[in-house]
Amino acid sequence: MNSKLSALQVARAEYKPKLPKLLKDNSFKLVFEEAVLDTASIDDIRRQFPHSFGKPLARFVSGEGSLSNEPVSVGVVLSGGQAPGGHNVIAGLLDALKAANENSRLIGFLGGPAGIVKGKYTELTPEFVAGYRNTGGFDIIGSGRDKVEKPEDLEACRKTLESLGVKSLVVIGGDDSNTNAALMAEYFTANGYDIQVIGVPKTIDGDMKNEHIETSFGFDTASKTFAELAGNICRDSMSACKYWHFIRLMGRAASHITLEVALQIHPNIAIISEEVEASGMTLPDVVDQIVEGVCKRAEAGKNYGIILIPEGLLEFLADVKELIAELGKILDTDEDYINTLTDPSDRRQHIDTRLTPASAKAYGSLPDDIQQVLLRRDKHGNLTLSQIETEKLLIDLVNDRIRLMQTTGEFKGKFAALNHFFGYEGRCVAPSNFDADYTYTLGYTAALLLRAGLTGYTVSATNLAKPADEWVMGGVPVASMLTMELRKGKMKPVIKKALVDVDGNAFKSFAQVRDRWLVEDDYVFPGPIQYFGPCPVCDATTKTLQLECGDGWCNANISVNEAVPAK
Amino acid sequence: MNSKLSALQVARAEYKPKLPKLLKDNSFKLVFEEAVLDTASIDDIRRQFPHSFGKPLARFVSGEGSLSNEPVSVGVVLSGGQAPGGHNVIAGLLDALKAANENSRLIGFLGGPAGIVKGKYTELTPEFVAGYRNTGGFDIIGSGRDKVEKPEDLEACRKTLESLGVKSLVVIGGDDSNTNAALMAEYFTANGYDIQVIGVPKTIDGDMKNEHIETSFGFDTASKTFAELAGNICRDSMSACKYWHFIRLMGRAASHITLEVALQIHPNIAIISEEVEASGMTLPDVVDQIVEGVCKRAEAGKNYGIILIPEGLLEFLADVKELIAELGKILDTDEDYINTLTDPSDRRQHIDTRLTPASAKAYGSLPDDIQQVLLRRDKHGNLTLSQIETEKLLIDLVNDRIRLMQTTGEFKGKFAALNHFFGYEGRCVAPSNFDADYTYTLGYTAALLLRAGLTGYTVSATNLAKPADEWVMGGVPVASMLTMELRKGKMKPVIKKALVDVDGNAFKSFAQVRDRWLVEDDYVFPGPIQYFGPCPVCDATTKTLQLECGDGWCNANISVNEAVPAK
Repeated sequence: MNSKLSALQVARAEYKPKLPKLLKDNSFKLVFEEAVLDTASIDDIRRQFPHSFGKPLARFVSGEGSLSNEPVSVGVVLSGGQAPGGHNVIAGLLDALKAANENSRLIGFLGGPAGIVKGKYTELTPEFVAGYRNTGGFDIIGSGRDKVEKPEDLEACRKTLESLGVKSLVVIGGDDSNTNAALMAEYFTANGYDIQVIGVPKTIDGDMKNEHIETSFGFDTASKTFAELAGNICRDSMSACKYWHFIRLMGRAASHITLEVALQIHPNIAIISEEVEASGMTLPDVVDQIVEGVCKRAEAGKNYGIILIPEGLLEFLADVKELIAELGKILDTDEDYINTLTDPSDRRQHIDTRLTPASAKAYGSLPDDIQQVLLRRDKHGNLTLSQIETEKLLIDLVNDRIRLMQTTGEFKGKFAALNHFFGYEGRCVAPSNFDADYTYTLGYTAALLLRAGLTGYTVSATNLAKPADEWVMGGVPVASMLTMELRKGKMKPVIKKALVDVDGNAFKSFAQVRDRWLVEDDYVFPGPIQYFGPCPVCDATTKTLQLECGDGWCNANISVNEAVPAK
Repeated sequence: MNSKLSALQVARAEYKPKLPKLLKDNSFKLVFEEAVLDTASIDDIRRQFPHSFGKPLARFVSGEGSLSNEPVSVGVVLSGGQAPGGHNVIAGLLDALKAANENSRLIGFLGGPAGIVKGKYTELTPEFVAGYRNTGGFDIIGSGRDKVEKPEDLEACRKTLESLGVKSLVVIGGDDSNTNAALMAEYFTANGYDIQVIGVPKTIDGDMKNEHIETSFGFDTASKTFAELAGNICRDSMSACKYWHFIRLMGRAASHITLEVALQIHPNIAIISEEVEASGMTLPDVVDQIVEGVCKRAEAGKNYGIILIPEGLLEFLADVKELIAELGKILDTDEDYINTLTDPSDRRQHIDTRLTPASAKAYGSLPDDIQQVLLRRDKHGNLTLSQIETEKLLIDLVNDRIRLMQTTGEFKGKFAALNHFFGYEGRCVAPSNFDADYTYTLGYTAALLLRAGLTGYTVSATNLAKPADEWVMGGVPVASMLTMELRKGKMKPVIKKALVDVDGNAFKSFAQVRDRWLVEDDYVFPGPIQYFGPCPVCDATTKTLQLECGDGWCNANISVNEAVPAK
C-alpha cells in the first residue's frame, strides 16, 4: 500500500458495506430448484461436463439452516480486466470465512490464473486486506488473462492447491473466466480431487447477466464514471455551442455501457450496436444517420451535439463484418506475402484484387491507417479491431459528407468535431456504494456456497434493484449457463454474452425518447459518483438495472424445491 | 433548463454557498492602499490608461461602512472558455444586488462580449437564476471570445448599456477579458460616460493569479476532475501492469494543472513546461528523460507507469520554439506557394531547404501529420499548436528509441503505451464546494465594489487557503496588473500570465519527491469530487493553493491606508 492516502481514501476506508438482511442476521437456509438448460447445446454440455451437469439452482431464503464451520483454506484469484469492487469481493469472502471459523485462511494467487499454475500466492490476512476495503483496482493480488484449460495446467493447479491445503477456489472473472471455473470444477470432481470451485460474475461491460445474475459487478461504477464525463461534455457543448463531440465508450462487443450512459445523460445521438446489427446497417448507413442528425440540429441553429459510440460498433456493421471475414480468409493464405510488402499502397492494391467489389468499396472508404490496422492480427490470429478509433473514423466520414454538402449549398451550418474515448478511466474507480455492497455480498455469498459444499457454481444475485437488505443471493451452476459457440474455428462451451436486448425495457425506454433528445438539448448531468449524501444521490443503481429488473422478469415467482443435493 | 434533473442536480441545487463572515454579517468597510506597479511598463500603461492609472487597492475589512443602496441595473457577461462556477458568480452578484435593493436588476448579455455590442441580452431574475445555482457550464447566457477593442465596438457597447439603463458591467473572464474590462472602463471614464466596469478572475488554467488574486475560479474543480481520472488510471496501470499511460492535460501555456494533478496523484513522471524552458531542454531531451524513466522502472520489473504532459509543452522546448519561429517567417513569405503544393513530400522538401540545419533536423523528427499541422495557421496567423497530440508524439518518439534499445539488447523490458487527453471533461463540472463558495463570493463582492462606486477593478481574493469565513475580498485596479508584451507583432497592455514558478513552493514540493515517485508506485487516488461528506473530503482546496498561500507570501502584512478614493 502507499504511504500517502487521499482524504477520500481515508474516509472511504471506514465504509461498512451492506449485506442482505438474511446474511447479516445469519437467518437463512439454502434451498434448491431445478435449473432450465439451453436445449440446443444440452447434449454437448452433458458430454463435456458429466459431473457438473444437472445441478440445481441454489438460493438463500429466510429460515434456519446450518453450514459447515470447519476451518478451511480457500484460494482466490482475479481473472481478466479490472472492474470496480474486486477488492471488496475478497474482503467479503475473508469476513465470511473468518466469521464461520477464525482459523480459516484465505490464499490469494498472484497475477491471475497463471499464479495457481505457477504456485505464486500470498496469504490474505485481515491486516493485509484492511487497506484494500472499498478501493478500486485489482492490485491486491493482480490479475491475468491466462486460462487454465490444458490438462497439464489443470494438474499443476491441483498440485499447487493440494500442497497449500487449499480445498476450494473462488474465481473472480467474466464469462470466459466463469466458464474456465466450470472446467476446473469438472476436472477436479472427475478426477476425485476434493477441491471446490466457485465463480463470481465480474465485468464492467455488463454482458455477463441472465435471469439469475441481474448484473455483473463493476458495471454500475464504470458506467457512472463515463456518464459523469459524458455529462460534463454535454454541458460544455451546450455552453460553447461550437463542437460535436464523438465519444467512444468501452464495453467490448456489448453496448450496455453506451445505452446506460445514454439513459443517464440524454445525448443527441447514441449508436447501439445490437440495433445496428438487427437492422442490417452498414458503415455508410451509420454515417447517414449522423449526418441527418447534424443537419437537423443545424436547421435549429445548433452546430453542436453529443454522439455516443460503443467500442464494438464496427463488428456489428454488415459491410465491415463481411470485409473482416474476407480479410481473414485473405490473411489465412497471403499473410506472409502481404508482410513482405513494405509500401502501404502495394498492400492496398493487393488486398483490393482479392476482395469482392462490395468489400473492396468498404475497404477503400477507410483512411490509410485503419486499412493497415485491418491487416494486422494478434498472436491469437484475431484482427486488432480495438485499435481502431471508431470515433475518429466516423468524424472523418461525416466531415467528408458535410463538406460536400457545404460545397453544394445543401448544408449551411458549421461542423467541427472533437473525439473522446473513455475506458481506462472507469475500470479502477473506488466502487460506488452499490458496487461496494454488491461485491462484498458476492464474496460473502461465495464463502457460504463453499461452506454448503457446492462446486461448479457462480454466485447468483437477484432483486438487485431493491435495497441491499432485500437482495436474493444464491448460486447458479455454471454448466446450466453454458452453450456451444464457434470460437477461433472450434465449437466451445461458453457462457453466452448478454448483448443489449432490443426488445428489452432499457433499449425501448431509450428508443421512445431519442428523437426528442436529438433536437432538444435535454441533457442530464449525473455528476461524479457520490459516496456520501442523500440516498438517491449515493445509493441508486443503474437505469439499466432499474428498467430491466425493477419490476420485471428477474423477480418472477419461482417454485422452490427444498431438497439438498449431495455434495 | 432541462425537464429532467439527475439526483445530484436536485440535491446540489439546495447547496448554500459560504460567504466570508464580514460579508455575511454585513459588518465591513472598504479600505484602500497604494498599488505597486510594474516599473518596466509604467509609462506606457499611464499613457494608455490615464484615467485608470494610479488607483489604489481596495479591501473589505471588519468595521462599519456604508455603500450605495440605490436601485441599479447591472449588466453581466461571460467571456472566454468555460470554467466551473460561472453560474454562481452570477447568483452571488444577483443576491448581493437584491439584498441591497429589491428593485435592482441584472441583465445578462448573450454569447459573450459580442452580445453587448449587438444588444443581445436577457434579464436575469431570481426565478431564472434559481435553476443554475451550483451548476457547471456557461449555458445560462453563453460565452464568447470576441474582444471589445475597436472604438466603434466600444461605442456600440455604450449605446446598448445606456439604452438599457445599465450603469455598470461585470465581466467574468480570464487575463485577456480582464484587460478588455480595463479598456472599457478607461473608455467610459475618458468619455464621461457614467458606466462602471468590474472584472472577475476566471480560468481553469490557473494562470491568472498574483499577490491579490490567489487563484482564478474553476482551477480547483477542473484540476480535481483531471486528478480523479488520472488517479483512476494510476490504479489501472498498477493493477494491469501492462501499459505506460501518457496523459496530456489542458491548461494552455501554463503547467499549473499538470503540477496540481501531479501533487495529487504522484505520477511516475510529470513534465512541467516552465522547468523545461528554464533548463533549455529540447524535444530529444524530454524523450531522453522519459526513456530513462521507462528503463529505470523496467529494471525494477515495472513495465508500466504514468506520465503527465502539459498541453503547452511544445512551445517551451528550445528546438521546437526555434522551429516554430523559423516556420513563421517562412510562412510569412512562402505561405501561398506552399499551399499550392498538394503533395506533402513536396512541402516537406521545400520547408527543409528553407530551415536552418538544427530546425530541419527537428522538423524531420516529427511524424507526417504533425509536419503538416505546423504549416497551417489560423485566421489570426497563429500556428494551430493545440491540434498536436503531444502525448502521441512522445509515445512515437519514445517507442522508436525503445525499439532500437531492444534490438541492441540494451532494453530487456516491455513497452506498450496508451494515450489520453483530459480537457473538455473538466471545464463544465458542477463547481466543487470551494469553487461554489468562491465564485458566489466573487460575484457578491463584484456587487459591493460597484456599490462602492469603483470602476476598472478586478475582484481580489486572498487568504483563500483558510476557511471561507476568513477570506479577504476586495478589488485590484486592472491597470496595476498590466504590463506591455509583444502580441502578434504589436506591443500591447496585458495581464501577465502567471506561469508555474520553478522557485515556488508548489514546484519545489514536487521536485523534492519526484525521484521517489518515478520508481516506487506511490500513487494517490483522489477519487471523484465529493459535494457531501467529511470536511477534508469535500471542502479542501488545491495543493497548489495550500502550498503557495497556506502560510506564504499572499498573506504578508500590508499597511493599510483608509482614505476613500474619489469615484
